[in-house]
Amino acid sequence: MNTTGCKTVAVVGLGLIGGSIAKAFQKYTPHRVLGLDRDTAVMREALDCGAIDEAITPAQLAQASLIYLCLYPQAAIDFIREYGCFIAPGCIVTDTCGIKTEICAQMPQLAASYGFTFIGAHPMAGRERNGFVMSDADLFLGASFILTPCGAAAEAVAELKRTTMPLGFSASVETTPEDHDRLIAFTSQVPHALACAYVMSPCCPRHKGFSAGSYRDVSRVANINEELWSELFLDNAAPLSAELETLIRHLSLIRQAVDSRDRDRLRELLRQGRLVKEELGE
Amino acid sequence: MNTTGCKTVAVVGLGLIGGSIAKAFQKYTPHRVLGLDRDTAVMREALDCGAIDEAITPAQLAQASLIYLCLYPQAAIDFIREYGCFIAPGCIVTDTCGIKTEICAQMPQLAASYGFTFIGAHPMAGRERNGFVMSDADLFLGASFILTPCGAAAEAVAELKRTTMPLGFSASVETTPEDHDRLIAFTSQVPHALACAYVMSPCCPRHKGFSAGSYRDVSRVANINEELWSELFLDNAAPLSAELETLIRHLSLIRQAVDSRDRDRLRELLRQGRLVKEELGE
Repeated sequence: MNTTGCKTVAVVGLGLIGGSIAKAFQKYTPHRVLGLDRDTAVMREALDCGAIDEAITPAQLAQASLIYLCLYPQAAIDFIREYGCFIAPGCIVTDTCGIKTEICAQMPQLAASYGFTFIGAHPMAGRERNGFVMSDADLFLGASFILTPCGAAAEAVAELKRTTMPLGFSASVETTPEDHDRLIAFTSQVPHALACAYVMSPCCPRHKGFSAGSYRDVSRVANINEELWSELFLDNAAPLSAELETLIRHLSLIRQAVDSRDRDRLRELLRQGRLVKEELGE
Repeated sequence: MNTTGCKTVAVVGLGLIGGSIAKAFQKYTPHRVLGLDRDTAVMREALDCGAIDEAITPAQLAQASLIYLCLYPQAAIDFIREYGCFIAPGCIVTDTCGIKTEICAQMPQLAASYGFTFIGAHPMAGRERNGFVMSDADLFLGASFILTPCGAAAEAVAELKRTTMPLGFSASVETTPEDHDRLIAFTSQVPHALACAYVMSPCCPRHKGFSAGSYRDVSRVANINEELWSELFLDNAAPLSAELETLIRHLSLIRQAVDSRDRDRLRELLRQGRLVKEELGE
Protein backbone atom coordinates (compact mmCIF):
# COMPACT_ATOMS: atom_id res chain seq x y z
CA MET A 1 0.00 0.00 0.00
CA ASN A 2 1.29 3.46 -0.93
CA THR A 3 2.12 5.38 2.27
CA THR A 4 2.22 8.89 0.79
CA GLY A 5 -0.03 11.12 2.89
CA CYS A 6 -0.06 8.52 5.64
CA LYS A 7 -1.84 9.68 8.79
CA THR A 8 -2.30 8.18 12.20
CA VAL A 9 -5.96 7.56 13.05
CA ALA A 10 -7.34 6.18 16.28
CA VAL A 11 -10.50 4.12 16.64
CA VAL A 12 -12.04 4.14 20.12
CA GLY A 13 -14.44 1.25 20.66
CA LEU A 14 -13.88 -1.83 18.48
CA GLY A 15 -17.43 -3.09 18.09
CA LEU A 16 -19.24 -3.62 14.81
CA ILE A 17 -18.77 -0.03 13.63
CA GLY A 18 -15.32 0.68 15.12
CA GLY A 19 -13.99 -2.69 14.03
CA SER A 20 -15.29 -2.09 10.51
CA ILE A 21 -13.76 1.39 10.36
CA ALA A 22 -10.39 -0.01 11.46
CA LYS A 23 -10.54 -2.84 8.92
CA ALA A 24 -11.65 -0.49 6.13
CA PHE A 25 -8.74 1.85 6.88
CA GLN A 26 -6.37 -1.09 6.56
CA LYS A 27 -7.95 -2.35 3.35
CA TYR A 28 -8.53 0.92 1.52
CA THR A 29 -6.03 3.50 2.85
CA PRO A 30 -2.33 3.78 3.74
CA HIS A 31 -3.06 5.21 7.20
CA ARG A 32 -1.74 3.83 10.46
CA VAL A 33 -4.56 2.61 12.72
CA LEU A 34 -4.47 2.74 16.53
CA GLY A 35 -7.17 0.87 18.44
CA LEU A 36 -8.60 1.25 21.93
CA ASP A 37 -11.25 -0.87 23.59
CA ARG A 38 -12.07 -1.46 27.25
CA ASP A 39 -12.07 -5.21 26.47
CA THR A 40 -8.41 -6.23 26.16
CA ALA A 41 -9.37 -9.53 24.49
CA VAL A 42 -11.02 -7.57 21.67
CA MET A 43 -7.92 -5.37 21.27
CA ARG A 44 -5.75 -8.49 21.06
CA GLU A 45 -8.09 -10.00 18.45
CA ALA A 46 -8.01 -6.76 16.43
CA LEU A 47 -4.21 -6.77 16.55
CA ASP A 48 -3.96 -10.45 15.64
CA CYS A 49 -6.16 -10.11 12.57
CA GLY A 50 -4.47 -6.92 11.44
CA ALA A 51 -7.46 -4.64 11.94
CA ILE A 52 -5.27 -2.30 13.99
CA ASP A 53 -1.55 -1.61 13.91
CA GLU A 54 -1.26 -0.88 17.60
CA ALA A 55 -3.38 -1.32 20.73
CA ILE A 56 -3.14 1.86 22.77
CA THR A 57 -4.05 3.40 26.13
CA PRO A 58 -5.95 6.71 26.31
CA ALA A 59 -2.67 8.56 26.96
CA GLN A 60 -1.40 7.42 23.53
CA LEU A 61 -4.30 9.17 21.74
CA ALA A 62 -1.92 12.12 21.42
CA GLN A 63 -0.35 10.38 18.38
CA ALA A 64 -3.55 10.57 16.36
CA SER A 65 -4.53 13.42 14.03
CA LEU A 66 -8.03 11.95 13.63
CA ILE A 67 -10.05 10.06 16.23
CA TYR A 68 -13.22 8.03 15.57
CA LEU A 69 -15.34 7.58 18.69
CA CYS A 70 -17.29 4.38 18.06
CA LEU A 71 -19.14 4.22 21.37
CA TYR A 72 -22.72 4.55 22.59
CA PRO A 73 -23.70 8.26 22.77
CA GLN A 74 -23.36 8.73 26.53
CA ALA A 75 -20.18 6.66 26.63
CA ALA A 76 -18.65 8.84 23.91
CA ILE A 77 -19.32 11.99 25.94
CA ASP A 78 -18.03 10.37 29.13
CA PHE A 79 -14.90 9.19 27.33
CA ILE A 80 -14.04 12.72 26.18
CA ARG A 81 -14.73 14.19 29.63
CA GLU A 82 -12.27 11.70 31.12
CA TYR A 83 -9.59 11.45 28.44
CA GLY A 84 -9.97 14.64 26.34
CA CYS A 85 -6.82 15.96 27.99
CA PHE A 86 -4.75 13.41 26.03
CA ILE A 87 -5.97 14.52 22.61
CA ALA A 88 -3.48 16.54 20.53
CA PRO A 89 -4.37 20.18 19.85
CA GLY A 90 -5.77 20.52 16.33
CA CYS A 91 -6.83 16.86 16.21
CA ILE A 92 -10.18 16.15 14.50
CA VAL A 93 -12.51 14.04 16.65
CA THR A 94 -15.62 12.52 15.14
CA ASP A 95 -18.21 10.03 16.33
CA THR A 96 -20.51 7.44 14.79
CA CYS A 97 -23.61 7.84 16.95
CA GLY A 98 -26.95 7.26 15.31
CA ILE A 99 -28.48 10.30 17.06
CA LYS A 100 -26.79 13.68 16.84
CA THR A 101 -28.64 16.40 18.79
CA GLU A 102 -27.47 15.30 22.23
CA ILE A 103 -23.83 14.62 21.39
CA CYS A 104 -23.56 17.77 19.25
CA ALA A 105 -24.94 19.84 22.14
CA GLN A 106 -22.12 18.75 24.43
CA MET A 107 -19.06 18.00 22.33
CA PRO A 108 -18.18 21.40 20.80
CA GLN A 109 -17.73 22.93 24.25
CA LEU A 110 -15.56 20.02 25.41
CA ALA A 111 -13.59 20.29 22.14
CA ALA A 112 -13.00 24.02 22.66
CA SER A 113 -11.78 23.45 26.20
CA TYR A 114 -9.30 20.75 25.08
CA GLY A 115 -8.28 22.45 21.82
CA PHE A 116 -9.46 19.83 19.32
CA THR A 117 -12.16 20.05 16.60
CA PHE A 118 -15.34 17.99 16.93
CA ILE A 119 -17.41 17.07 13.85
CA GLY A 120 -20.49 14.92 14.40
CA ALA A 121 -20.91 12.07 11.94
CA HIS A 122 -23.14 9.10 11.28
CA PRO A 123 -21.95 6.44 8.85
CA MET A 124 -25.26 4.96 7.65
CA ALA A 125 -24.45 1.28 7.88
CA GLY A 126 -25.16 -1.55 10.26
CA ARG A 127 -25.77 -5.24 10.66
CA GLU A 128 -28.31 -7.27 12.62
CA ARG A 129 -25.53 -8.58 14.88
CA ASN A 130 -23.02 -6.59 16.89
CA GLY A 131 -19.49 -6.80 18.15
CA PHE A 132 -16.00 -6.91 16.64
CA VAL A 133 -16.67 -10.46 15.47
CA MET A 134 -19.23 -9.08 12.97
CA SER A 135 -17.06 -6.20 11.75
CA ASP A 136 -16.28 -6.05 8.05
CA ALA A 137 -13.92 -3.92 5.98
CA ASP A 138 -16.69 -3.61 3.38
CA LEU A 139 -19.46 -2.52 5.76
CA PHE A 140 -19.55 1.01 4.31
CA LEU A 141 -19.46 0.18 0.60
CA GLY A 142 -22.15 2.26 -1.07
CA ALA A 143 -23.31 3.80 2.22
CA SER A 144 -24.03 7.43 2.98
CA PHE A 145 -21.69 9.41 5.29
CA ILE A 146 -23.75 12.00 7.16
CA LEU A 147 -21.98 14.93 8.81
CA THR A 148 -23.29 17.43 11.35
CA PRO A 149 -20.43 19.98 11.48
CA CYS A 150 -22.13 22.32 13.98
CA GLY A 151 -19.81 25.21 13.21
CA ALA A 152 -16.54 23.28 12.72
CA ALA A 153 -14.15 24.97 10.27
CA ALA A 154 -14.77 24.08 6.62
CA GLU A 155 -11.16 22.91 6.20
CA ALA A 156 -11.59 20.41 9.07
CA VAL A 157 -14.83 19.11 7.54
CA ALA A 158 -13.09 18.72 4.17
CA GLU A 159 -10.21 16.87 5.86
CA LEU A 160 -12.60 14.47 7.63
CA LYS A 161 -14.40 13.72 4.37
CA ARG A 162 -11.11 13.30 2.46
CA THR A 163 -9.95 10.75 5.02
CA THR A 164 -13.24 8.92 5.56
CA MET A 165 -14.87 8.69 2.12
CA PRO A 166 -12.26 6.18 0.82
CA LEU A 167 -13.59 3.65 3.36
CA GLY A 168 -16.22 2.91 0.71
CA PHE A 169 -18.93 5.55 1.13
CA SER A 170 -20.77 6.50 -2.02
CA ALA A 171 -22.07 9.89 -0.87
CA SER A 172 -21.79 12.40 1.93
CA VAL A 173 -24.42 14.79 3.17
CA GLU A 174 -24.22 17.65 5.69
CA THR A 175 -27.07 18.87 7.82
CA THR A 176 -28.00 20.08 11.31
CA PRO A 177 -28.25 17.63 14.22
CA GLU A 178 -31.99 18.35 14.55
CA ASP A 179 -32.73 17.69 10.88
CA HIS A 180 -30.63 14.53 11.01
CA ASP A 181 -32.50 13.22 14.02
CA ARG A 182 -35.93 13.93 12.52
CA LEU A 183 -35.04 12.02 9.33
CA ILE A 184 -33.33 9.18 11.19
CA ALA A 185 -36.43 8.72 13.36
CA PHE A 186 -38.21 7.89 10.11
CA THR A 187 -35.56 6.01 8.14
CA SER A 188 -34.02 3.95 10.91
CA GLN A 189 -35.70 4.14 14.32
CA VAL A 190 -39.28 3.53 13.18
CA PRO A 191 -38.27 0.38 11.21
CA HIS A 192 -36.55 -0.98 14.34
CA ALA A 193 -39.55 -0.23 16.59
CA LEU A 194 -41.78 -1.68 13.92
CA ALA A 195 -39.84 -4.92 13.56
CA CYS A 196 -40.11 -5.56 17.31
CA ALA A 197 -43.81 -4.65 17.44
CA TYR A 198 -44.49 -6.85 14.41
CA VAL A 199 -42.90 -10.05 15.71
CA MET A 200 -44.82 -9.71 18.99
CA SER A 201 -47.93 -10.97 17.15
CA PRO A 202 -49.11 -14.33 18.52
CA CYS A 203 -49.00 -15.56 14.88
CA CYS A 204 -45.24 -15.00 14.55
CA PRO A 205 -43.98 -18.30 16.01
CA ARG A 206 -46.07 -20.16 13.37
CA HIS A 207 -44.94 -18.16 10.31
CA LYS A 208 -42.71 -20.80 8.72
CA GLY A 209 -44.25 -22.31 5.59
CA PHE A 210 -46.58 -19.31 5.37
CA SER A 211 -44.08 -16.54 4.81
CA ALA A 212 -41.78 -15.18 2.15
CA GLY A 213 -39.90 -11.96 1.48
CA SER A 214 -42.37 -9.54 3.14
CA TYR A 215 -42.16 -11.22 6.53
CA ARG A 216 -38.39 -11.54 6.28
CA ASP A 217 -37.87 -7.88 5.39
CA VAL A 218 -40.14 -6.35 8.04
CA SER A 219 -38.93 -8.64 10.84
CA ARG A 220 -35.21 -8.55 9.97
CA VAL A 221 -34.07 -5.86 12.39
CA ALA A 222 -36.13 -7.21 15.31
CA ASN A 223 -32.85 -8.95 16.12
CA ILE A 224 -32.10 -5.81 18.07
CA ASN A 225 -29.46 -4.79 20.60
CA GLU A 226 -32.01 -3.48 23.11
CA GLU A 227 -29.35 -1.87 25.30
CA LEU A 228 -28.10 0.37 22.46
CA TRP A 229 -31.48 1.03 20.82
CA SER A 230 -33.32 1.94 24.00
CA GLU A 231 -30.65 4.61 24.53
CA LEU A 232 -30.88 5.80 20.91
CA PHE A 233 -34.70 5.91 21.13
CA LEU A 234 -34.68 8.01 24.30
CA ASP A 235 -31.97 10.33 22.93
CA ASN A 236 -34.41 11.08 20.11
CA ALA A 237 -37.68 10.75 21.99
CA ALA A 238 -39.65 13.67 20.55
CA PRO A 239 -38.95 13.08 16.81
CA LEU A 240 -39.38 9.32 17.23
CA SER A 241 -42.67 9.69 19.07
CA ALA A 242 -43.95 12.03 16.34
CA GLU A 243 -43.01 9.56 13.61
CA LEU A 244 -44.59 6.65 15.48
CA GLU A 245 -47.76 8.71 15.88
CA THR A 246 -47.78 9.40 12.12
CA LEU A 247 -47.33 5.72 11.33
CA ILE A 248 -49.99 4.60 13.81
CA ARG A 249 -52.40 7.17 12.33
CA HIS A 250 -51.85 5.92 8.76
CA LEU A 251 -52.15 2.28 9.83
CA SER A 252 -55.40 3.16 11.59
CA LEU A 253 -56.76 4.78 8.41
CA ILE A 254 -56.07 1.56 6.50
CA ARG A 255 -57.65 -0.49 9.27
CA GLN A 256 -60.76 1.71 9.28
CA ALA A 257 -61.14 1.30 5.51
CA VAL A 258 -60.87 -2.48 5.97
CA ASP A 259 -63.36 -2.48 8.86
CA SER A 260 -65.90 -0.45 6.90
CA ARG A 261 -65.34 -2.59 3.77
CA ASP A 262 -64.69 0.67 1.89
CA ARG A 263 -62.88 -0.56 -1.21
CA ASP A 264 -62.54 2.88 -2.85
CA ARG A 265 -60.99 4.37 0.27
CA LEU A 266 -58.67 1.39 0.74
CA ARG A 267 -57.57 1.46 -2.90
CA GLU A 268 -56.88 5.19 -2.59
CA LEU A 269 -54.77 4.75 0.57
CA LEU A 270 -52.67 1.99 -0.99
CA ARG A 271 -52.35 4.07 -4.17
CA GLN A 272 -50.91 6.95 -2.13
CA GLY A 273 -48.18 4.63 -0.91
CA ARG A 274 -47.39 3.40 -4.40
CA LEU A 275 -47.19 6.98 -5.75
CA VAL A 276 -44.66 8.02 -3.09
CA LYS A 277 -42.40 5.15 -4.15
CA GLU A 278 -42.89 5.85 -7.84
CA GLU A 279 -42.09 9.54 -7.44
CA LEU A 280 -38.87 8.54 -5.70
CA GLY A 281 -38.09 6.23 -8.62
CA GLU A 282 -37.93 3.20 -6.31
CA MET B 1 -36.55 -32.95 -21.84
CA ASN B 2 -37.75 -36.47 -21.02
CA THR B 3 -41.45 -36.76 -21.89
CA THR B 4 -42.26 -39.84 -19.82
CA GLY B 5 -45.28 -39.07 -17.65
CA CYS B 6 -46.06 -36.05 -19.80
CA LYS B 7 -49.32 -34.35 -18.89
CA THR B 8 -51.25 -31.48 -20.37
CA VAL B 9 -51.62 -28.56 -17.96
CA ALA B 10 -53.49 -25.32 -18.57
CA VAL B 11 -52.63 -21.96 -17.08
CA VAL B 12 -55.51 -19.46 -16.98
CA GLY B 13 -54.30 -15.88 -16.55
CA LEU B 14 -50.74 -15.16 -17.72
CA GLY B 15 -49.75 -12.42 -15.29
CA LEU B 16 -46.76 -12.55 -12.94
CA ILE B 17 -47.85 -15.78 -11.25
CA GLY B 18 -49.46 -17.56 -14.23
CA GLY B 19 -46.60 -16.58 -16.54
CA SER B 20 -44.08 -17.85 -13.99
CA ILE B 21 -45.95 -21.15 -13.57
CA ALA B 22 -46.00 -21.66 -17.35
CA LYS B 23 -42.30 -20.85 -17.70
CA ALA B 24 -41.39 -23.08 -14.75
CA PHE B 25 -43.32 -25.99 -16.27
CA GLN B 26 -41.34 -25.53 -19.50
CA LYS B 27 -38.02 -25.25 -17.69
CA TYR B 28 -38.40 -27.97 -15.07
CA THR B 29 -40.94 -30.54 -16.36
CA PRO B 30 -41.80 -32.44 -19.53
CA HIS B 31 -45.46 -31.37 -19.44
CA ARG B 32 -47.34 -29.69 -22.28
CA VAL B 33 -48.50 -26.19 -21.30
CA LEU B 34 -51.69 -24.56 -22.60
CA GLY B 35 -52.21 -20.86 -21.92
CA LEU B 36 -55.29 -18.67 -21.75
CA ASP B 37 -55.46 -14.93 -21.15
CA ARG B 38 -58.12 -12.34 -21.97
CA ASP B 39 -55.33 -10.19 -23.46
CA THR B 40 -54.47 -11.77 -26.82
CA ALA B 41 -51.20 -9.78 -27.02
CA VAL B 42 -50.04 -11.47 -23.81
CA MET B 43 -50.97 -14.91 -25.18
CA ARG B 44 -48.96 -14.18 -28.32
CA GLU B 45 -45.98 -13.02 -26.25
CA ALA B 46 -46.19 -16.18 -24.12
CA LEU B 47 -46.26 -18.32 -27.27
CA ASP B 48 -43.39 -16.41 -28.89
CA CYS B 49 -41.09 -16.77 -25.89
CA GLY B 50 -41.98 -20.44 -25.42
CA ALA B 51 -43.72 -20.01 -22.06
CA ILE B 52 -46.74 -21.90 -23.45
CA ASP B 53 -47.02 -24.55 -26.15
CA GLU B 54 -50.47 -23.47 -27.29
CA ALA B 55 -52.79 -20.51 -26.81
CA ILE B 56 -56.29 -21.82 -26.20
CA THR B 57 -59.92 -20.78 -25.88
CA PRO B 58 -61.99 -21.82 -22.84
CA ALA B 59 -63.53 -24.65 -24.87
CA GLN B 60 -60.08 -26.23 -25.27
CA LEU B 61 -59.63 -26.54 -21.50
CA ALA B 62 -61.06 -30.05 -21.96
CA GLN B 63 -57.57 -31.22 -23.03
CA ALA B 64 -56.04 -30.42 -19.63
CA SER B 65 -55.78 -32.84 -16.73
CA LEU B 66 -54.64 -30.04 -14.42
CA ILE B 67 -55.71 -26.39 -14.53
CA TYR B 68 -54.02 -23.50 -12.67
CA LEU B 69 -56.35 -20.51 -12.21
CA CYS B 70 -54.01 -17.54 -11.87
CA LEU B 71 -56.63 -14.82 -11.55
CA TYR B 72 -57.84 -12.41 -8.87
CA PRO B 73 -60.15 -14.24 -6.40
CA GLN B 74 -63.50 -13.03 -7.74
CA ALA B 75 -62.36 -13.42 -11.35
CA ALA B 76 -61.37 -17.04 -10.65
CA ILE B 77 -64.84 -17.83 -9.31
CA ASP B 78 -66.52 -15.98 -12.20
CA PHE B 79 -64.33 -17.84 -14.71
CA ILE B 80 -65.42 -21.23 -13.38
CA ARG B 81 -69.09 -20.22 -13.28
CA GLU B 82 -68.86 -19.28 -16.97
CA TYR B 83 -66.50 -21.89 -18.36
CA GLY B 84 -66.61 -24.79 -15.84
CA CYS B 85 -68.68 -26.72 -18.36
CA PHE B 86 -65.61 -27.13 -20.59
CA ILE B 87 -63.46 -28.77 -17.92
CA ALA B 88 -62.89 -32.51 -18.32
CA PRO B 89 -64.45 -34.77 -15.65
CA GLY B 90 -61.76 -35.84 -13.17
CA CYS B 91 -59.58 -32.82 -13.95
CA ILE B 92 -57.81 -31.21 -10.99
CA VAL B 93 -58.37 -27.46 -10.79
CA THR B 94 -56.28 -25.34 -8.45
CA ASP B 95 -55.86 -21.61 -7.89
CA THR B 96 -53.11 -19.27 -6.74
CA CYS B 97 -55.13 -16.74 -4.73
CA GLY B 98 -53.49 -15.18 -1.71
CA ILE B 99 -56.68 -15.52 0.35
CA LYS B 100 -58.44 -18.87 0.64
CA THR B 101 -61.61 -18.72 2.77
CA GLU B 102 -63.79 -17.06 0.13
CA ILE B 103 -62.66 -19.10 -2.87
CA CYS B 104 -62.73 -22.36 -0.90
CA ALA B 105 -66.28 -21.60 0.23
CA GLN B 106 -67.51 -21.45 -3.36
CA MET B 107 -65.33 -23.68 -5.51
CA PRO B 108 -66.01 -27.18 -4.10
CA GLN B 109 -69.71 -26.87 -4.91
CA LEU B 110 -68.98 -25.63 -8.45
CA ALA B 111 -66.45 -28.45 -8.82
CA ALA B 112 -69.01 -31.05 -7.74
CA SER B 113 -71.57 -29.72 -10.20
CA TYR B 114 -69.08 -29.88 -13.11
CA GLY B 115 -67.39 -33.12 -12.04
CA PHE B 116 -63.85 -31.86 -11.45
CA THR B 117 -61.77 -31.70 -8.24
CA PHE B 118 -60.87 -28.34 -6.71
CA ILE B 119 -57.85 -27.95 -4.42
CA GLY B 120 -57.10 -24.49 -3.10
CA ALA B 121 -53.45 -23.46 -3.27
CA HIS B 122 -51.22 -20.50 -2.60
CA PRO B 123 -47.70 -20.52 -4.01
CA MET B 124 -45.89 -18.17 -1.58
CA ALA B 125 -43.97 -16.06 -4.06
CA GLY B 126 -44.28 -12.63 -5.62
CA ARG B 127 -42.49 -9.61 -6.95
CA GLU B 128 -42.96 -5.86 -6.49
CA ARG B 129 -44.03 -5.56 -10.13
CA ASN B 130 -46.79 -7.39 -11.94
CA GLY B 131 -47.68 -8.73 -15.36
CA PHE B 132 -46.35 -11.36 -17.74
CA VAL B 133 -43.35 -9.12 -18.45
CA MET B 134 -42.14 -9.75 -14.86
CA SER B 135 -42.76 -13.51 -14.90
CA ASP B 136 -39.81 -15.77 -14.20
CA ALA B 137 -39.32 -19.54 -14.44
CA ASP B 138 -37.40 -19.35 -11.17
CA LEU B 139 -39.99 -17.38 -9.17
CA PHE B 140 -40.84 -20.39 -6.99
CA LEU B 141 -37.32 -21.59 -6.18
CA GLY B 142 -37.20 -22.21 -2.44
CA ALA B 143 -40.79 -21.04 -1.91
CA SER B 144 -43.50 -22.72 0.13
CA PHE B 145 -46.49 -24.32 -1.62
CA ILE B 146 -49.52 -24.00 0.63
CA LEU B 147 -52.54 -26.23 0.01
CA THR B 148 -56.06 -25.96 1.38
CA PRO B 149 -57.58 -29.26 0.19
CA CYS B 150 -61.02 -28.70 1.81
CA GLY B 151 -62.04 -32.34 1.55
CA ALA B 152 -60.48 -33.16 -1.83
CA ALA B 153 -59.41 -36.83 -2.17
CA ALA B 154 -55.93 -37.57 -0.84
CA GLU B 155 -54.90 -39.05 -4.21
CA ALA B 156 -55.82 -35.79 -6.00
CA VAL B 157 -53.85 -33.76 -3.44
CA ALA B 158 -50.85 -36.07 -3.90
CA GLU B 159 -51.15 -35.71 -7.69
CA LEU B 160 -51.24 -31.89 -7.47
CA LYS B 161 -48.14 -31.87 -5.25
CA ARG B 162 -46.32 -34.36 -7.49
CA THR B 163 -46.94 -32.13 -10.50
CA THR B 164 -46.35 -28.75 -8.85
CA MET B 165 -43.42 -29.26 -6.45
CA PRO B 166 -40.89 -29.69 -9.33
CA LEU B 167 -41.53 -26.03 -10.29
CA GLY B 168 -38.96 -25.25 -7.58
CA PHE B 169 -40.85 -25.25 -4.28
CA SER B 170 -38.83 -26.28 -1.27
CA ALA B 171 -41.73 -27.28 0.99
CA SER B 172 -45.46 -27.85 0.98
CA VAL B 173 -47.86 -27.35 3.85
CA GLU B 174 -51.56 -28.22 4.15
CA THR B 175 -54.04 -26.37 6.33
CA THR B 176 -57.59 -25.05 6.48
CA PRO B 177 -58.57 -21.89 4.55
CA GLU B 178 -59.31 -20.07 7.82
CA ASP B 179 -55.93 -20.91 9.36
CA HIS B 180 -54.18 -19.94 6.12
CA ASP B 181 -55.91 -16.57 6.02
CA ARG B 182 -55.14 -15.79 9.66
CA LEU B 183 -51.43 -16.50 9.12
CA ILE B 184 -51.29 -14.68 5.77
CA ALA B 185 -52.85 -11.60 7.36
CA PHE B 186 -49.73 -11.53 9.54
CA THR B 187 -46.99 -12.70 7.17
CA SER B 188 -48.05 -10.91 4.00
CA GLN B 189 -50.98 -8.49 4.31
CA VAL B 190 -49.74 -6.54 7.35
CA PRO B 191 -46.31 -5.93 5.71
CA HIS B 192 -48.05 -4.54 2.62
CA ALA B 193 -50.38 -2.27 4.65
CA LEU B 194 -47.37 -1.27 6.72
CA ALA B 195 -45.19 -0.37 3.74
CA CYS B 196 -47.89 1.97 2.40
CA ALA B 197 -48.57 3.54 5.80
CA TYR B 198 -44.82 3.98 6.37
CA VAL B 199 -44.02 5.84 3.14
CA MET B 200 -46.94 8.24 3.77
CA SER B 201 -44.74 10.03 6.34
CA PRO B 202 -43.94 13.59 5.28
CA CYS B 203 -40.25 12.67 5.84
CA CYS B 204 -40.27 9.99 3.14
CA PRO B 205 -39.54 12.17 0.08
CA ARG B 206 -36.34 13.37 1.81
CA HIS B 207 -34.98 9.95 2.84
CA LYS B 208 -32.12 9.72 0.32
CA GLY B 209 -28.74 10.18 1.96
CA PHE B 210 -30.31 9.39 5.33
CA SER B 211 -31.41 5.82 4.76
CA ALA B 212 -30.00 2.35 4.40
CA GLY B 213 -31.27 -1.21 4.60
CA SER B 214 -34.04 -0.66 7.17
CA TYR B 215 -35.85 1.94 5.08
CA ARG B 216 -35.42 -0.14 1.94
CA ASP B 217 -36.79 -3.31 3.52
CA VAL B 218 -39.87 -1.81 5.19
CA SER B 219 -40.83 0.32 2.19
CA ARG B 220 -40.12 -2.25 -0.52
CA VAL B 221 -43.65 -3.60 -1.03
CA ALA B 222 -45.28 -0.15 -0.97
CA ASN B 223 -44.90 -0.48 -4.73
CA ILE B 224 -48.29 -2.12 -4.52
CA ASN B 225 -50.91 -3.13 -7.08
CA GLU B 226 -53.75 -1.39 -5.22
CA GLU B 227 -56.44 -2.99 -7.39
CA LEU B 228 -55.40 -6.52 -6.40
CA TRP B 229 -54.46 -5.80 -2.79
CA SER B 230 -57.61 -3.85 -1.92
CA GLU B 231 -59.55 -6.96 -3.05
CA LEU B 232 -57.28 -9.31 -1.08
CA PHE B 233 -57.55 -7.10 2.03
CA LEU B 234 -61.36 -7.03 1.93
CA ASP B 235 -61.55 -10.79 1.24
CA ASN B 236 -59.70 -11.20 4.54
CA ALA B 237 -61.07 -8.22 6.43
CA ALA B 238 -61.59 -9.73 9.88
CA PRO B 239 -58.20 -11.48 10.30
CA LEU B 240 -56.37 -8.51 8.76
CA SER B 241 -58.13 -6.02 11.00
CA ALA B 242 -57.27 -8.12 14.05
CA GLU B 243 -53.58 -8.27 13.06
CA LEU B 244 -53.45 -4.53 12.38
CA GLU B 245 -55.00 -3.92 15.79
CA THR B 246 -52.33 -6.13 17.40
CA LEU B 247 -49.55 -4.26 15.58
CA ILE B 248 -50.97 -0.82 16.41
CA ARG B 249 -51.26 -1.87 20.07
CA HIS B 250 -47.62 -3.00 20.24
CA LEU B 251 -46.40 0.13 18.43
CA SER B 252 -48.39 2.22 20.91
CA LEU B 253 -46.74 0.43 23.84
CA ILE B 254 -43.31 1.31 22.44
CA ARG B 255 -44.41 4.90 21.83
CA GLN B 256 -45.73 5.20 25.41
CA ALA B 257 -42.41 3.94 26.79
CA VAL B 258 -40.61 6.55 24.65
CA ASP B 259 -42.99 9.33 25.72
CA SER B 260 -42.58 8.51 29.40
CA ARG B 261 -38.77 8.16 29.00
CA ASP B 262 -39.11 4.72 30.64
CA ARG B 263 -35.86 3.06 29.60
CA ASP B 264 -36.50 -0.20 31.49
CA ARG B 265 -39.89 -0.65 29.88
CA LEU B 266 -38.53 0.25 26.43
CA ARG B 267 -35.58 -2.13 26.77
CA GLU B 268 -37.98 -4.89 27.85
CA LEU B 269 -40.30 -4.34 24.85
CA LEU B 270 -37.41 -4.41 22.37
CA ARG B 271 -36.00 -7.46 24.14
CA GLN B 272 -39.31 -9.30 23.62
CA GLY B 273 -38.94 -8.73 19.88
CA ARG B 274 -35.37 -9.99 19.85
CA LEU B 275 -36.32 -13.12 21.81
CA VAL B 276 -39.07 -14.05 19.32
CA LYS B 277 -36.53 -13.89 16.49
CA GLU B 278 -33.92 -15.80 18.47
CA GLU B 279 -36.35 -18.57 19.40
CA LEU B 280 -37.18 -18.94 15.71
CA GLY B 281 -33.44 -19.19 14.99
CA GLU B 282 -33.59 -16.19 12.66
